[in-house]
Amino acid sequence: MTRDEQFMRLALAEAQKAAENGEVPVGCVIVYKDQVIAAGRNRREKGKSALAHAEIAAIRRACRVLGGWRLWECELYVTLEPCPMCAGAILNARIPRVVYGAADEKAGAMGSVFDLFSFPLNHKPEVVSGVCAGESRALLQAFFEKLRQRPKKKWNKNTQPPEQT
Amino acid sequence: MTRDEQFMRLALAEAQKAAENGEVPVGCVIVYKDQVIAAGRNRREKGKSALAHAEIAAIRRACRVLGGWRLWECELYVTLEPCPMCAGAILNARIPRVVYGAADEKAGAMGSVFDLFSFPLNHKPEVVSGVCAGESRALLQAFFEKLRQRPKKKWNKNTQPPEQT
Repeated sequence: MTRDEQFMRLALAEAQKAAENGEVPVGCVIVYKDQVIAAGRNRREKGKSALAHAEIAAIRRACRVLGGWRLWECELYVTLEPCPMCAGAILNARIPRVVYGAADEKAGAMGSVFDLFSFPLNHKPEVVSGVCAGESRALLQAFFEKLRQRPKKKWNKNTQPPEQT
Repeated sequence: MTRDEQFMRLALAEAQKAAENGEVPVGCVIVYKDQVIAAGRNRREKGKSALAHAEIAAIRRACRVLGGWRLWECELYVTLEPCPMCAGAILNARIPRVVYGAADEKAGAMGSVFDLFSFPLNHKPEVVSGVCAGESRALLQAFFEKLRQRPKKKWNKNTQPPEQT
């Protein structure tokens, strides 16, 4: 197993925990000098927040651990290609290396829908894609398959609608 | 004074508070059914977090107030053009209307460096720019002018570097 696969397995374990909590399974770890210093998983439904993505949770914790907003000696591992918000957070935190698993054709901002780092911004990390992508996709597919088998909840405009796939 | 200018003045008041705390002056308010339900200001240095932008703080609070991650009946007012992270957070929260003040030529993701909403993503808000832009720019210019007059702090690689302009 490569070094990147080893760390990605830890991110996959976070994704698995998200699935067990009824959340879309995406997990993330942040590595500093070969040590995992922060982990995060998607908890958008339970956390009731548009910001509760795995990468945001992990970046918040890593900033706390290192005592500042610059994570310029860290690597970020995430099971799914980051969305625009998370790619932007990686940019703002000056993370120099990002490793992701499965591509996200609907919302991926590191090559799928567009590539954030193709624009003249003030930071450009190294990006490695496709690490343990099969395992990441399998987790997501199993989650959505289970979701489709559930009876649909009804909702009205005065409450939050049920989760979307 | 227009309705947009009225709400933008509240965002400018948040930006002013940021400046008073030694932070780059950017402020934001979120409006739901003509009422301000959340406000936020930049506190990246004091908060020691790459995520501590005005919009992120306001979106977090608005999600808490409304009890869910979808802010589909809200308007967001921010004094400076959102960066990629914040534009992505607006997308994730499904905010249908964004009003901003000054353009950000270095990091703006709503037309300056690139336009996030020109890509085929699953949400596209109405965007209004240039509201109270002069006041917003004046606050930023005064802040950076003051910063340049300060003696420079020394730093080494083991600590976080001083704030950048």
